Amino acid sequence: MATLFTRATVLPMTGALPQTFTGAVGVAGNRIALVTDDEAAVAAFRAAHPDVREIDCSGRLVMPGLVDTHCHAAMTLQRSYADDIALMEWLNDYIWPFEARQTADDAVLGMTLGIVEMLLGGVTSFVDMYYFENRCVETVDRLGIRAMLGCNYFDTNVDAVLPEVEDAVRRAEGRDRIRIAVAPHAPYTVSPENLLRGRALCERYGLCLTTHIAETQDEVRIVRERYGCTPVEHLDRLGLLTERTIGAHCIHLTDVDIETLAGRGVIVAHNPQSNMKIASGVAPVERLRAAGATVTVATDGPCSNNDLDMWEELRTASFLQKSATGDPLALPAYEALKLATANGARAMGRAEGELGVLRDGALADLIVVDLQKPHLQPIHDVVATLAYCGKASDVDTVMVDGRILVENRRIAGIDLPRLYADAAAAVARIKGC
Amino acid sequence: MATLFTRATVLPMTGALPQTFTGAVGVAGNRIALVTDDEAAVAAFRAAHPDVREIDCSGRLVMPGLVDTHCHAAMTLQRSYADDIALMEWLNDYIWPFEARQTADDAVLGMTLGIVEMLLGGVTSFVDMYYFENRCVETVDRLGIRAMLGCNYFDTNVDAVLPEVEDAVRRAEGRDRIRIAVAPHAPYTVSPENLLRGRALCERYGLCLTTHIAETQDEVRIVRERYGCTPVEHLDRLGLLTERTIGAHCIHLTDVDIETLAGRGVIVAHNPQSNMKIASGVAPVERLRAAGATVTVATDGPCSNNDLDMWEELRTASFLQKSATGDPLALPAYEALKLATANGARAMGRAEGELGVLRDGALADLIVVDLQKPHLQPIHDVVATLAYCGKASDVDTVMVDGRILVENRRIAGIDLPRLYADAAAAVARIKGC
Repeated sequence: MATLFTRATVLPMTGALPQTFTGAVGVAGNRIALVTDDEAAVAAFRAAHPDVREIDCSGRLVMPGLVDTHCHAAMTLQRSYADDIALMEWLNDYIWPFEARQTADDAVLGMTLGIVEMLLGGVTSFVDMYYFENRCVETVDRLGIRAMLGCNYFDTNVDAVLPEVEDAVRRAEGRDRIRIAVAPHAPYTVSPENLLRGRALCERYGLCLTTHIAETQDEVRIVRERYGCTPVEHLDRLGLLTERTIGAHCIHLTDVDIETLAGRGVIVAHNPQSNMKIASGVAPVERLRAAGATVTVATDGPCSNNDLDMWEELRTASFLQKSATGDPLALPAYEALKLATANGARAMGRAEGELGVLRDGALADLIVVDLQKPHLQPIHDVVATLAYCGKASDVDTVMVDGRILVENRRIAGIDLPRLYADAAAAVARIKGC
Repeated sequence: MATLFTRATVLPMTGALPQTFTGAVGVAGNRIALVTDDEAAVAAFRAAHPDVREIDCSGRLVMPGLVDTHCHAAMTLQRSYADDIALMEWLNDYIWPFEARQTADDAVLGMTLGIVEMLLGGVTSFVDMYYFENRCVETVDRLGIRAMLGCNYFDTNVDAVLPEVEDAVRRAEGRDRIRIAVAPHAPYTVSPENLLRGRALCERYGLCLTTHIAETQDEVRIVRERYGCTPVEHLDRLGLLTERTIGAHCIHLTDVDIETLAGRGVIVAHNPQSNMKIASGVAPVERLRAAGATVTVATDGPCSNNDLDMWEELRTASFLQKSATGDPLALPAYEALKLATANGARAMGRAEGELGVLRDGALADLIVVDLQKPHLQPIHDVVATLAYCGKASDVDTVMVDGRILVENRRIAGIDLPRLYADAAAAVARIKGC
C-alpha cells in the first residue's frame, strides 16, 4: 500500500533551521519513502508503486504529526467537570469520587473520545498515564493512533499495577505502534523502594519510564523534608533519570537540577496550559534548552487544560517563555514546532530521525494542514504562521503508521453522535444524576 | 424580518452568576425580542411574526457575539511577516517600510480579511485603530460587522488625521452599527497639546477615545522623565480618562493608577497574547477587577498575536491571571467570557444591557456554537467548556444587528479564494518580490 502526497508545501522538521519546499511525500507501507521536490523522483515512485493513491495537496502543507508527551486521555470524561474550585474540594468532592465509581468501560470511552479529539487535531502519538492498562492497549490498537502507555502507580496500588504492566508488555508484543511505559506517579507519592521496583521493570523489558517531576512547590518541600534533596536529585540517586525517562512538568528546578536533567538525557514534557491553569509555576524551558535538555510539549489531562489541543499548547509554550523571560525572541516559532514533533518523538522511545520528521525511512506519521483559511492568510513565513496561528481544526488529513485515519476532517470508523451519547450516559451514571 | 433560534442551550450573560437554560431566542429587526424557556412565549412570537425564519439549535448554544476591544485589523496583511526578531529591526526593516508602501486599497484588503476571520470566529464587534479612516468606515459598512473605528494619530500626522475623523463622523452618521473614536497613539508619542485636541473632538461629537496606556516599561520611564508622573496620571491630568475612554494594555500600573482607572470608569482592553508574545509584561487584571474597573479582552493586531481569535484570547486571559497571581481560582470561566461579551460591549459606547447580552431589547449580535465536537464533550458545565475549550471553529452561525452573516461556517458574499489571492498579490507587490 502506497500513498503519494503531491503539490504540497512540505515542512520536514529535519534541519536545525526551518526549511520548506513545494514537492511530494511518498509513503510505502508504514514508512516514508520519498520527500522530494524532484519531479523525476516522484515519477520513479509512481512507477515503483503502480497502485499508489495520490492526494493533491495544493494549498496545503504536509508535516510530521504532533506528539503529546504527557496525557491522561481517559480523563476526557471529566473535562470541565470541576473548574475554578480549590484543590482539596476538587479532589475530595469531584475527581476521586468520580474515579472511584467509573469502570474500565468508562475509561475506554473517555480514552476513545480523547483519541478522536487528538487525531482530529493532528496528534499522531501520545504518552499516557492512567489505569486499566490492558484496556488502554486494546483501545489504542483499535483506533490506530501511536502511543506509549503507562499505568499510574502509587505505593497504594503498586502490587496490583506492576503485574498489569508485565501483562500489557506481553499483549503489546508485536505491535510496534504500541509501547508500554512504567509510570510511578511522582517522587513524593511513591517510596524509593517502589520507584526501584519500577526501574527494575524498565530494565527487565527495556521500557521507558514516565513520572511527574517537580510540578509544585509542595512536592519540592515534601521531598526535601523526607530525603534532604530536590525531586531531581532524589530520582537521580535512585538511578531513575536516563535517556528513557520522560519527566512531566519539571517546573521547580535548581540550576543543578537543570544540568542533571540535561546531562542524563531526560525528556522533559512541558505542559504550559496546565501549569498556568493550575497555577503551578512556569517551567524554565529556555534554561533547560540552553543546558541541552530535550524539551517536548504536552497537554496534560483534560481536567487541567481542558482539551488535547497541541497547537494551542505549542503556541502557549512559546508565548509563556517570552513573557516569563522578558525576551520576545525566546522559544521562536520553529523551535516551538520542534518541541511538538522531532523532540516529542524522542519520548516515544524512538531513535532520532525515526519519528517526528519527514525523511526517507521514518515512520509514516504525518498530517496535512489546510492553509486556505482566513486566519492563516496571507502567508509570509509558513513556519511562523503555523506556530502562532495554526489550529487543530486546520488539520484535514492524518496518517499514522502509513494508514490514513482522518481525511477531510472526517475520522473513519467512529460514530461521533453515538460516542457523545455514550459519554453523556456514562457521566450521568457515574455522577448518579 | 424575524429570526427564531429554537431548542438551544441559551447563555444570556446577563447575570452576575452563570445561568443557562434550554429554550429560544427571538430576533425582530435588529433587536432581540425574546429570550425564554416558555413554549407559550415562543408560540406568541411565532404568531406575531408569521414570516419568521426558524433555526433549530439542537446540540448548539446561543450566546452574545464576542467583542474585540483593541485591534488593528488591516495589519492582517502583515500577519507573521516578521516574527521572532528584535524590535528595532522589526520596525525599521519590516513594519515601517511595509506600511510606507501600502495603499488604502491594501488596507481595505487587510481589513476585509481580518473581518472575515473575526466573523467566522464569532466576533461581532471590534474597536479598531488604524489609518484610512473613511475606507475603514466603508469596509465595515459593506461587511456588516459592528465596529468602533479610530484613526491612529501621532504628533507627526495629527493635522491630517483630525479632519479625517470629522469627515468619518459625517459619513458614519445614520449608521448605528459604525461609531467613530478618537485614537491618539499613546501618551509618550502624542504631546499634551495634541491629546487635548483629541479630547476636544470627543466632546464636540460625543465620541469615545481609545489609546495605548502603559504598555511598556520604556513608556512609563519616558512619561516620567517628561511629565514627572505615570502615563495614567498624565492622561488623567489632561482630562482624557472617562467612561468613554478605552485604554489598551494598561500593564505597568501603580496602585494609584489602578484606583484612577477604576474610579474614572475607563474601559481596560487587556491583550494577553500580544503582551506575552512581545514580552511587555502581565497586566494586573485581577487587581483591576477587584478595584471595580471594567476589564475587557482583545486580540491586538495580527502582527503581535498573530490572529484575531477571541476564544484563545479569553482563555489566555484566565490562564495568565491564574499563573501570574499563583491563584488557580483567579479569573474564572464565566468572568473570562464576560470580558469578551458584556464588558466588551461597554467599549462600543453602549449602555449596559444594550449589547453583549441576550435580553429583550438588546441589539441582536449573537452567535451559535456547535457543541457536538469531540473537544467539547462530554459537557459537565457548559460555561467552563466554552471558556476553557471553545474554539473559533466551533462557531457556526453569526448574527450582527439582526442579520445572519455566517451560517454553517460559510460567510455570505465573500469569495474566499479570490480574497486570499488578492492578499497574496498585494503582499508580493508591497514587498517588491
